[in-house]
Amino acid sequence: MLETLDLSLSLSKEAYREALDPLQNELHALQIQARNQHVPIIIVYEGWDAAGKGGNIRRLTERLDPRFITVYGIGKPTEEELDHHYLWRFWTKLPCRNEMVIFDRSWYGRVLVERVEGFATTAEWQRAYREINEFERLLHDDGAQLIKFWLHISSEEQLHRFEARMADPTKRWKMTDEDWRNRGKWQQYESAIEEMLERTADPIPWQLIEANDKRWARIKVLRTVVDQLRTRLIPVEPPVVP
Amino acid sequence: MLETLDLSLSLSKEAYREALDPLQNELHALQIQARNQHVPIIIVYEGWDAAGKGGNIRRLTERLDPRFITVYGIGKPTEEELDHHYLWRFWTKLPCRNEMVIFDRSWYGRVLVERVEGFATTAEWQRAYREINEFERLLHDDGAQLIKFWLHISSEEQLHRFEARMADPTKRWKMTDEDWRNRGKWQQYESAIEEMLERTADPIPWQLIEANDKRWARIKVLRTVVDQLRTRLIPVEPPVVP
Amino acid sequence: MLETLDLSLSLSKEAYREALDPLQNELHALQIQARNQHVPIIIVYEGWDAAGKGGNIRRLTERLDPRFITVYGIGKPTEEELDHHYLWRFWTKLPCRNEMVIFDRSWYGRVLVERVEGFATTAEWQRAYREINEFERLLHDDGAQLIKFWLHISSEEQLHRFEARMADPTKRWKMTDEDWRNRGKWQQYESAIEEMLERTADPIPWQLIEANDKRWARIKVLRTVVDQLRTRLIPVEPPVVP
Amino acid sequence: MLETLDLSLSLSKEAYREALDPLQNELHALQIQARNQHVPIIIVYEGWDAAGKGGNIRRLTERLDPRFITVYGIGKPTEEELDHHYLWRFWTKLPCRNEMVIFDRSWYGRVLVERVEGFATTAEWQRAYREINEFERLLHDDGAQLIKFWLHISSEEQLHRFEARMADPTKRWKMTDEDWRNRGKWQQYESAIEEMLERTADPIPWQLIEANDKRWARIKVLRTVVDQLRTRLIPVEPPVVP
Repeated sequence: MLETLDLSLSLSKEAYREALDPLQNELHALQIQARNQHVPIIIVYEGWDAAGKGGNIRRLTERLDPRFITVYGIGKPTEEELDHHYLWRFWTKLPCRNEMVIFDRSWYGRVLVERVEGFATTAEWQRAYREINEFERLLHDDGAQLIKFWLHISSEEQLHRFEARMADPTKRWKMTDEDWRNRGKWQQYESAIEEMLERTADPIPWQLIEANDKRWARIKVLRTVVDQLRTRLIPVEPPVVP
Repeated sequence: MLETLDLSLSLSKEAYREALDPLQNELHALQIQARNQHVPIIIVYEGWDAAGKGGNIRRLTERLDPRFITVYGIGKPTEEELDHHYLWRFWTKLPCRNEMVIFDRSWYGRVLVERVEGFATTAEWQRAYREINEFERLLHDDGAQLIKFWLHISSEEQLHRFEARMADPTKRWKMTDEDWRNRGKWQQYESAIEEMLERTADPIPWQLIEANDKRWARIKVLRTVVDQLRTRLIPVEPPVVP
Repeated sequence: MLETLDLSLSLSKEAYREALDPLQNELHALQIQARNQHVPIIIVYEGWDAAGKGGNIRRLTERLDPRFITVYGIGKPTEEELDHHYLWRFWTKLPCRNEMVIFDRSWYGRVLVERVEGFATTAEWQRAYREINEFERLLHDDGAQLIKFWLHISSEEQLHRFEARMADPTKRWKMTDEDWRNRGKWQQYESAIEEMLERTADPIPWQLIEANDKRWARIKVLRTVVDQLRTRLIPVEPPVVP
Repeated sequence: MLETLDLSLSLSKEAYREALDPLQNELHALQIQARNQHVPIIIVYEGWDAAGKGGNIRRLTERLDPRFITVYGIGKPTEEELDHHYLWRFWTKLPCRNEMVIFDRSWYGRVLVERVEGFATTAEWQRAYREINEFERLLHDDGAQLIKFWLHISSEEQLHRFEARMADPTKRWKMTDEDWRNRGKWQQYESAIEEMLERTADPIPWQLIEANDKRWARIKVLRTVVDQLRTRLIPVEPPVVP
């Protein structure tokens, strides 16, 4: 699936700036509509390390009303989280019907990092596909708008970004040995990703984002969210001028 | 299914007293073992109004270490709970791996009271069977010991208990008009219950409890919990005497 | 303060049995009244290791309706708890106005174990007296019934109980090296306790319990809770017999 | 206190645009420093209806990393919140040591709307001053950076904004009868505000913001937050170039 992505897709600065503003404004309007129509929004970001999730999320949220958004960065589980089923930490973070929740990494950790690093047993990550599909179906049937992104970059692009981070004293703190270790297992992760994309596409399809160019990725994500919400929500009647 | 129950089953006071103490003691020992073996315990009580759930629960818990048990009485959902999927309020109450949680009424409200009273749409309560089965499968696969009871009484016995409560000034507060209204829909509830018992028996089977006699019901519940835990847990080695 | 306690106070088995039942029954009645009158109940147990808190709590709770009680065993804080002010973990556990919450150890850990073991700085545990007094005043002013117990045993009695635990294969797991290390600091703990009792007696006074005899301690705790609730709650009118 | 504010202060569009960008960038840098130095940040927005809190907050947050910020819009309490002390809902929302939390309205509701509208008894709102001061002292002593703003507009400016909202079909939904009713009690609110500003200035002083001009108010808030964080945090060493 990932092979078919054209990672050379990109946007010029001008095209980016021109597209950004109207999309952010429309998303702001849609956020208000979603609240009024009681449609909770759940957005999942997954992607390679250094795929640009953080900056992408910021462009998605910066124009929105922050009182109705929560962004969760999902890292190593706490003791209390480990003491429950892995979906527990996500259930407790689900939005009310007037909110938007964004997960920067998510329950898919079960079939990615936990699988590859051996934190979950084979039986555990294998049954996770079904558990996840049922979880997403339940959210969908309950009226939530769930959108999930895979931000894809090439191995060369990741190397390039890692090296740039190391060279920049203000960003070096972002890099850990773990990043390099994970990078060393690129192929194992790749096949875990492919299996994930295949086995968790129903009922909620994956949105694949070519992310070698950050501008392209940001606009594509924004446009996808705007399109899905526009399709889903009941249009607001234009005010009648008497 | 319910027709086959023999509601005349009963225990004398003496038989009850003789049985109660050793079962409570064994359950206390099993509670400690379950904690040491990291087996969370989830017990669901469902049953007709006035079936004796409260008193039954007290006999189950009174000898146990209260620091590791929580009993939730599940009533009308709060605004915040209504603002989420109906399983959300139960996910947030799931036990840690050293705890026991008892639900006095549970997620089955979706296919009982919410169905009969029209608080859930037909589509909602119909898809709930699958959601509940998947939820329980997930808990079971994750290592929880989940036991669910239906406490059954006859319509005559319920009437008898309602009248006794009305006659007792210290218990009259327990009775509301709603209790009488619900009683008026006995047959609708009965067919909802039958359908529930049939469609949610897999993977976790229902334990049907003849509850016209409270003593019988208490001992049968206690014995069922003890049996299931004894089967499930690894026996503690007797201490070696040198 | 502790010196004045007469640790030889004790109850015979018969006197204990005779006292236990009516007190438990009265407490059950008072629990229902407190719920109806919307008085939340908060009970704090502090005391030496092996002072008998667990067993004491069980006698307090076993006759009560478990749906309206939660018992929290307070141990080492989790990462998330450490990431907040030490009172945070207690605020999140405060009862609703129809509940009773029992803390088996509590916020007093700040001026006891955290002080003696150096987990809190001197500035931190010193300002804790004021923080705690203000916290308790706030709960009291808000209508909660807050009762706090210090279960006191002699150093000899503790040694005796530690040795008995070590000798009993079913209880040996309860003993850790830490218990022995703490015991080695008896005097440091003693002066921390004395300072705590003195500086946190207002607005909520401490209830000192002579606990060398477990039966005495259980009955005294029960009686104290019953007395305080009886004084506090509005008596229920006896039913009018026409 | 409020009389001394010069509500004619304003910023031109150009001056605003010039000031905004560098302040937002510096705040972003300070956010990262605060996280690294484990300084939780708590920002309280209070102000008249239509004082521009929402838009002000958005300018404060839009450049920041949304994974470490939560903005809470505080409205009518839920049933569960009413079932606890009024500070409970804020305690449960306090930040971890790497987070920033923004309250759009806050615990000061107790001495403003709840006082004026009679939702709290006189005894309740009067003792709230002390409770709030002790709460803020505790947060401050615990290392949190707490900043609280009062956004002030004139009665004429509020009327002007209310009318503009009514005239704009996309904003009319924001206006309720309650807004007009509250406006009718301007003087009662004014004296409640004055008393609040006076009695809760220690240990955390109020930051008064002239908000008749939104641009002025946004820049003043941003500058205040930047100044306080810059003073508080340990400067990051410039990277040593070998």
